[in-house]
Amino acid sequence: MALLVQKYGGTSVANLERIQRVADRVAESRRRGNRLVVVVSAMSGVTDGLLRMAREIDREPREREMDLLLATGEQTTTALLAMALHARGVDAVALTGAQAGIVTDGTHTRARIANVTPSAVRAHLQAGRVVIVAGFQGQTMGGQITTLGRGGSDLTAIALAAVLRAARCEIYTDVDGVYTADPRTEPRARKIREISYDEMLELASTGAKVMQARSVEFAKKFGVVFEVRSSFHRTRGTMVKEEAKSMERVVVRGVSLEKNQAKVTLAGVADRPGVAANMFSGIARGGINVDMIVQNVSLPADGKRGKAQTDITFTVPRDELSKVKRYLEKFRQTGGARQILFQEGIAKVSVVGIGMRSHSGVAAQLFRALAKAGVNIQMISTSEIKITVVVDESAGPKAVRAAHREFRLGGRAQKR
Amino acid sequence: MALLVQKYGGTSVANLERIQRVADRVAESRRRGNRLVVVVSAMSGVTDGLLRMAREIDREPREREMDLLLATGEQTTTALLAMALHARGVDAVALTGAQAGIVTDGTHTRARIANVTPSAVRAHLQAGRVVIVAGFQGQTMGGQITTLGRGGSDLTAIALAAVLRAARCEIYTDVDGVYTADPRTEPRARKIREISYDEMLELASTGAKVMQARSVEFAKKFGVVFEVRSSFHRTRGTMVKEEAKSMERVVVRGVSLEKNQAKVTLAGVADRPGVAANMFSGIARGGINVDMIVQNVSLPADGKRGKAQTDITFTVPRDELSKVKRYLEKFRQTGGARQILFQEGIAKVSVVGIGMRSHSGVAAQLFRALAKAGVNIQMISTSEIKITVVVDESAGPKAVRAAHREFRLGGRAQKR
Repeated sequence: MALLVQKYGGTSVANLERIQRVADRVAESRRRGNRLVVVVSAMSGVTDGLLRMAREIDREPREREMDLLLATGEQTTTALLAMALHARGVDAVALTGAQAGIVTDGTHTRARIANVTPSAVRAHLQAGRVVIVAGFQGQTMGGQITTLGRGGSDLTAIALAAVLRAARCEIYTDVDGVYTADPRTEPRARKIREISYDEMLELASTGAKVMQARSVEFAKKFGVVFEVRSSFHRTRGTMVKEEAKSMERVVVRGVSLEKNQAKVTLAGVADRPGVAANMFSGIARGGINVDMIVQNVSLPADGKRGKAQTDITFTVPRDELSKVKRYLEKFRQTGGARQILFQEGIAKVSVVGIGMRSHSGVAAQLFRALAKAGVNIQMISTSEIKITVVVDESAGPKAVRAAHREFRLGGRAQKR
Repeated sequence: MALLVQKYGGTSVANLERIQRVADRVAESRRRGNRLVVVVSAMSGVTDGLLRMAREIDREPREREMDLLLATGEQTTTALLAMALHARGVDAVALTGAQAGIVTDGTHTRARIANVTPSAVRAHLQAGRVVIVAGFQGQTMGGQITTLGRGGSDLTAIALAAVLRAARCEIYTDVDGVYTADPRTEPRARKIREISYDEMLELASTGAKVMQARSVEFAKKFGVVFEVRSSFHRTRGTMVKEEAKSMERVVVRGVSLEKNQAKVTLAGVADRPGVAANMFSGIARGGINVDMIVQNVSLPADGKRGKAQTDITFTVPRDELSKVKRYLEKFRQTGGARQILFQEGIAKVSVVGIGMRSHSGVAAQLFRALAKAGVNIQMISTSEIKITVVVDESAGPKAVRAAHREFRLGGRAQKR
């Protein structure tokens, strides 16, 4: 009997009726003879409701108590899903993260899984039970309840699949897989059958937010093959796995668009070791997510001999711009930079594919396609399997469609 | 610094505004120098909402998962109250029942406390923190989450007060103490300043539902003195304690009225050992709460020699009558009784007081008073400190007022 780990996200268990539908699906899989571990999120809206109450009581609630509060959301879903299975005559048991052996460090609200001790899960599986596990949560060695932060339930599922050596891991969500582009932007977008961890990671980091990067990284590290699919219909989703030979034949796997970005340029930064490090450490301490850092080649100022200066540009999510401004103003006043420029209304467009590694000229091909479409490129950054360009936000969708066409990613226009 | 255990019931923490008020009260007590353990219930309505969801999913949900579900209610309140204290600059920590060391047996939904291991609570108190504990819940030695059943939060508070040797235990609820009678029935009812455990127990068992009997029993067993008082105003409540000499001067402490009762009479039951035992065991297995059993003296049937027969009468809550009927019909058919009579529309009136033990004639005095008021007595049952009579439901309030007057319990008519 194959061991299967399934994870159902918040929208999949949003209300009692959807929990019933999940129970139908789980019961069916059980009847086909699978052994099952089912990881669930909080019913969608529940976590937000708890957050709202907490913030109404204390503007900055302590994280330890926040975790105690939030953990109730997933615990509720596990109990209800187990009951729904019982009502279908399926033996099932609901476990909190702690009971399932998810041991974490003590970093409340964004704990890291330290290890998984699945003896209780194994015993229940052995006894023929479907094991329902509360995602997103764990417990420290000292018995403190923790939560794993964004995408935590995916992480729970993948960690359990790893330690239990599950035959398959299925991540049920409200999209039916990973697409070559967002179908709302590009109607010809196709669902990707198979994608490598690295491609998935690059897509995750550039706005195709099917999954958080940390869960994909975890899966890659432990070699957990997983499928992203929809809990609302039966179609096959996207398999995420180690790269296969056949994958390399495809040069570009997908195109992503990330809107709501802002660009920050520091002009006249002293070009000596440590200056950039200091600045970015300061920004990081503020919890700001900096992306796409570009530094121009240094030129002596005014062609004269003197202190070398450089320009640094980076992007941040637009809603973090005010925090960045506050920090950088201090940096400028203490002589860190001559001038600072901010620009909102930009977007990042990325093409991703492991095939790029063995195909030269992909960047040039992209730039030509964008030029032909009349899209002006403001910034460029490349990695081994990704090329990202910054363009005007209004030109974003046009850029996506141009790249999608150029790399022949499309099928016929999809009805979703 | 005195150690104080406080318990706030569901109506006291019914919404965020009330949680804020409880936090004010706790913060004030803390500033006066008390060390504090605060036990909280689920916000009122929350438990019912969870029960409703569970029953919608499965008509008879398994008790293990029920406990997992219900325990989230109190956990939520602890986190919110701790946050409210943080916002007031009071160091506080929220603990689940398990974290607070409440160890129970494995009887889900009505677990019994096996022991309390308060090392974490002690450590937090030592560190100067207010300790917020989720009432109503615990954990088995094997790590299963359990709940303690009705009145469970009171039990948590009293158990913690016992094991921590607290100087005081305050039970905050939506009434401001124990009264000589229900003020809605008898406007002259007075709040009782001090009451013995035994009197409180007898009142609890006869409808004055300020607290469940088991919590009072627990307090008596471990000598925990506690005060029942209102969380909505500041007036002193009722102290519940071991009887003092001065208490005995009062013959009757209070009068209670229990409506919605039904009477069942079995006529012609074989008068031999084991027959009644069998019948009542059967009823008990159905989870029915039988009260006031009266058996008449046996008389040989028809004055002839033959099998001795007897009549047995008992009362049950009216809403359990249909279950009783079903069971007893079988009992009758198998020859257990000649005839069975059911009567709804009755009430129980009890007078309670430890002073009765040393005062004879209390029963006679009560019966005279009821007769004078024109109240007909249908059944009588007495214990050492309680006399209960069954009367017509419509005569219940009149009976309460007559007894209240007879034993001079009243003050001036109260405004509540």
